[in-house]
Amino acid sequence: MRWIIPDGWMPTGSSAGIDAHEAVCVVNLATHDAQLTFTFLFEDREPDVVDGLICGARRSRHFRLDWPHELGGYRLAAETPYSLLVESDSPISVQHTRVDTRAGGIALMTTMAGALHRMTL
Amino acid sequence: MRWIIPDGWMPTGSSAGIDAHEAVCVVNLATHDAQLTFTFLFEDREPDVVDGLICGARRSRHFRLDWPHELGGYRLAAETPYSLLVESDSPISVQHTRVDTRAGGIALMTTMAGALHRMTL
Amino acid sequence: MRWIIPDGWMPTGSSAGIDAHEAVCVVNLATHDAQLTFTFLFEDREPDVVDGLICGARRSRHFRLDWPHELGGYRLAAETPYSLLVESDSPISVQHTRVDTRAGGIALMTTMAGALHRMTL
Amino acid sequence: MRWIIPDGWMPTGSSAGIDAHEAVCVVNLATHDAQLTFTFLFEDREPDVVDGLICGARRSRHFRLDWPHELGGYRLAAETPYSLLVESDSPISVQHTRVDTRAGGIALMTTMAGALHRMTL
Repeated sequence: MRWIIPDGWMPTGSSAGIDAHEAVCVVNLATHDAQLTFTFLFEDREPDVVDGLICGARRSRHFRLDWPHELGGYRLAAETPYSLLVESDSPISVQHTRVDTRAGGIALMTTMAGALHRMTL
Repeated sequence: MRWIIPDGWMPTGSSAGIDAHEAVCVVNLATHDAQLTFTFLFEDREPDVVDGLICGARRSRHFRLDWPHELGGYRLAAETPYSLLVESDSPISVQHTRVDTRAGGIALMTTMAGALHRMTL
Repeated sequence: MRWIIPDGWMPTGSSAGIDAHEAVCVVNLATHDAQLTFTFLFEDREPDVVDGLICGARRSRHFRLDWPHELGGYRLAAETPYSLLVESDSPISVQHTRVDTRAGGIALMTTMAGALHRMTL
Repeated sequence: MRWIIPDGWMPTGSSAGIDAHEAVCVVNLATHDAQLTFTFLFEDREPDVVDGLICGARRSRHFRLDWPHELGGYRLAAETPYSLLVESDSPISVQHTRVDTRAGGIALMTTMAGALHRMTL
């Protein structure tokens, strides 16, 4: 199954000790690990592919997109429009969240990723 | 039917008299009660299961996740990544909302839970 | 078609001249009007039904839930948990949004309503 | 495929150098460009149609709705209720986001657009 998040844009800054960021949250209800690939698509260049990511069996995993060590060393460009495709070798569910602290305080937004079935893509 | 929320993370703190929290909101349109089970999945340990929850016939129910008395005494760890699986013995709909007051003011985010059909899991 | 929003809770207050509110936003792409019924479900009492609402042909309609004159005179209780069922005699799409100004500033949250097909309810 | 966003309302104002706006974010995973048409529906007048928009092959595109040069010169009325229909000649995914700075700070909300299949409209 493939999951898509059209609106990625990771803010920078910090407020009240909270760093602005985006996160991709994955849950794997199965009894075996899920192997994940993240493909970042941009407005004006070819996609970047990060593979070798794992969400363990019966585990939640929240990938901080501002932390390269959670993305196999990949450094996602901040304040740059992107979309994210999440592919998995077994069924998972995916949600994407933005935490914006640029203007002080916090703003949050979240959405379930869109499920791409064969029929839709 | 089963419903999934990948991004759970319950903030703490208070602003303008409003306590930070998350809530799971359920609605049951049927003429009989729905029996619910909540399974909390984590990044680094086995899931916790809370059963015996009820959403009455033709009723809305907003479960505050920071109030153990609404979860059969279960105390959800705050500021800890989790995912939530909601199972019901009859059709319901489920939405998950975060209220974050850590930086003063309020930030909100919400999503419908993802519906898990047999074909997807 | 029927649409459901599990998490309704309408805040009160005002900030920067903006009144806290919730809104149900409907769009009707067809060439004939859609007749709508709103059913408000609560935690501890029977549902309230508001019918006779209309979304015109090829029109958007944003129903302010704090304005009884947009709900046929119905006054939705503020700061009270509810869920909302939207029924229509022809295909529409439905989104629900909360504007919270209780702590100063604004917080927003929104979700597409869940579509209830025969198979799910 | 057609995508719908019922709740459009583009705020104005600026906070911390951030202009209030709404954006429609599109991603095209295919190896050919997608031709897009945006139809804006209103409460009290006929829809406006903007065509000739493109999302390139294997590209993300974030359309700022307050920037006429990204909409073929179309100027979307601010602080006016609307809904948006996005049509594409090939499969895409669509998300809609609001950035509200009217009261200082930032508020965010987002939703995946609703997918309109033949069966639902």
